[in-house]
Amino acid sequence: MTGAPIETDALVIGAGPVGLWQVFQLGLQDIRCHVIDALPGGGGQPAELYPGKPIYDIPGLPVCSGQELMDRLQQQVRPFAPSLHLGQTVTGLVRREDARFDVQTSAGTGFIARSVFIAAGVGAFQARPLKLEGIEAFEGSQVFHRPQDPEAFAGLQVVVHGGEEHAVDWALRLADAARPPASITLLHRRDVFQAGAPDLARLQALTDQGRIRRSIGQPLGLKVQDSRLTGIEIVTPDDQTRVQPLDALLVCLGLSPRLGPIADWGLAMERKQLVVDTVGFETSVPGIHAVGDINTYPGKKKLILCGFHEATLAAFAAAARLFPEQRTLLQYTTTSPKLHRLLGVGG
Amino acid sequence: MTGAPIETDALVIGAGPVGLWQVFQLGLQDIRCHVIDALPGGGGQPAELYPGKPIYDIPGLPVCSGQELMDRLQQQVRPFAPSLHLGQTVTGLVRREDARFDVQTSAGTGFIARSVFIAAGVGAFQARPLKLEGIEAFEGSQVFHRPQDPEAFAGLQVVVHGGEEHAVDWALRLADAARPPASITLLHRRDVFQAGAPDLARLQALTDQGRIRRSIGQPLGLKVQDSRLTGIEIVTPDDQTRVQPLDALLVCLGLSPRLGPIADWGLAMERKQLVVDTVGFETSVPGIHAVGDINTYPGKKKLILCGFHEATLAAFAAAARLFPEQRTLLQYTTTSPKLHRLLGVGG
Repeated sequence: MTGAPIETDALVIGAGPVGLWQVFQLGLQDIRCHVIDALPGGGGQPAELYPGKPIYDIPGLPVCSGQELMDRLQQQVRPFAPSLHLGQTVTGLVRREDARFDVQTSAGTGFIARSVFIAAGVGAFQARPLKLEGIEAFEGSQVFHRPQDPEAFAGLQVVVHGGEEHAVDWALRLADAARPPASITLLHRRDVFQAGAPDLARLQALTDQGRIRRSIGQPLGLKVQDSRLTGIEIVTPDDQTRVQPLDALLVCLGLSPRLGPIADWGLAMERKQLVVDTVGFETSVPGIHAVGDINTYPGKKKLILCGFHEATLAAFAAAARLFPEQRTLLQYTTTSPKLHRLLGVGG
Repeated sequence: MTGAPIETDALVIGAGPVGLWQVFQLGLQDIRCHVIDALPGGGGQPAELYPGKPIYDIPGLPVCSGQELMDRLQQQVRPFAPSLHLGQTVTGLVRREDARFDVQTSAGTGFIARSVFIAAGVGAFQARPLKLEGIEAFEGSQVFHRPQDPEAFAGLQVVVHGGEEHAVDWALRLADAARPPASITLLHRRDVFQAGAPDLARLQALTDQGRIRRSIGQPLGLKVQDSRLTGIEIVTPDDQTRVQPLDALLVCLGLSPRLGPIADWGLAMERKQLVVDTVGFETSVPGIHAVGDINTYPGKKKLILCGFHEATLAAFAAAARLFPEQRTLLQYTTTSPKLHRLLGVGG
């Protein structure tokens, strides 16, 4: 804990499409919320797993990419400006005696929430780790699973490990840095890289100029001298073993989702999914809702548009529970002056 | 019955947003369908009740008009080209011994359907009738509650009755006709008309030119001579009674929804809504689903986006029932070659 916990009516876990829609529907109920997401920019599966690929089954959008969908939802949710807590995961959730919830994040943020909406999809996206003996000791000093600033590597011998978009992107960003590294080596198990055509063309050009080198092989172990990482041992496709010297190792093997500690929160589960009702998509603990890919109920289909429906009914149920004195009448955004005021549109 | 009944796997009643989405989701299941709608152009409540008004709560569309939403859905459903049966209502639905359904429409079309999807919203939109004694005798000859062709009134004295968009639109269309009427009179109870600003401006200009006259008053009765309608008796705001001569009367009082005979089909209902489960949104009769505003279940909210979810799960349930031998695996439009083929997109 780095400060006093934040008290809130609603806490949304996950800033993917369904989490954002949860924020929107809570906003229409005049409930403001805080949002936690593992990724620095949120975005969930559409932004992380298929940003450029077309989706055809969002009603009213005959075709849109994952990134476009997220951009549209970001714009839509703007009137309700949620407080975002990004780049952190929920580490603990405990029900209090006053029926509220104590929630802690990996960044040390604490919340006391009256209602919780778990829109965590397939789990929190984590950098896929490079598993080599003793590598943990160098994380943050010479090994970076989630590098932030290309300028931080000026003058160093940098190895970028990975063969897909994220790795190629980092090699290019290092080459473009105002103060670039002394050397940039892209290390991958084979000499085939997956990225957009323009990025691959630039990679080839920079390779031809000698500004990016490629090293083909599988990492075997780390080379350490005087407690300092000096190289990475690799085995090449023709079974030679050699050491690639380095000052810094950027591990860009992509992200993979991890369900994390949700299983420890005492919520009823079935096959790693949270069991919910279909009235307000509430879990076995009153006040905790689960929406989107993480929940299950009879007939459940893991589709984004189903998550939109679930988040909508969850917001109505939460409003009725949080503010029982107010009758929650259904109003329409097309005609309701109250909803127009909340949306900040003329009426 | 005008011909042999049409045999089909799926029949959708209603071409509003949820009916169209039902077609789309059936299409993704590789099930082609026929669609019936009361209006000549379909479109449901968004196109009929609020074509120009903004909707804010369709996910991914921060703002769009009712008409724009329908245009977008029309485009989205195009790969599955449903057979449309417009301008007719369902008059009868009877379960057959072979568990299929005999369905009849007001236009005499007959169907034998293996599954039925009632997406009828608040009911079939019908022209609001002008109630005057004996008026029925002239329907289709001199009185038109749903006029089609402005050229049909060439050289006649025409009275258009109504004060809103539809009435103003018809007065303007008559004035624009290649062979216009001898006279056009817009009859309304008061001298205030509701329509878009450009239409109102044109109405004023044509009134100033004497090409459209306005008659202010309430209809009281019909004037008939030798079995022919010759005028309409009206009472003016200053309580004078006079006769407005005419050859043709266009009744443009707007449309109102009518639930119609659905209540007679033996389906379980609650407060005029069809009771459904939340697994496949099936009514009390297996094979008949109800989606959108016409259904009810615990937690139900009459929102378009909820109807999208309901139609989606209904399509999955119908596919499992119609084709039990095929396991219905969830596939994603982003990645599935089968869905790409059905959608007609490259992959």
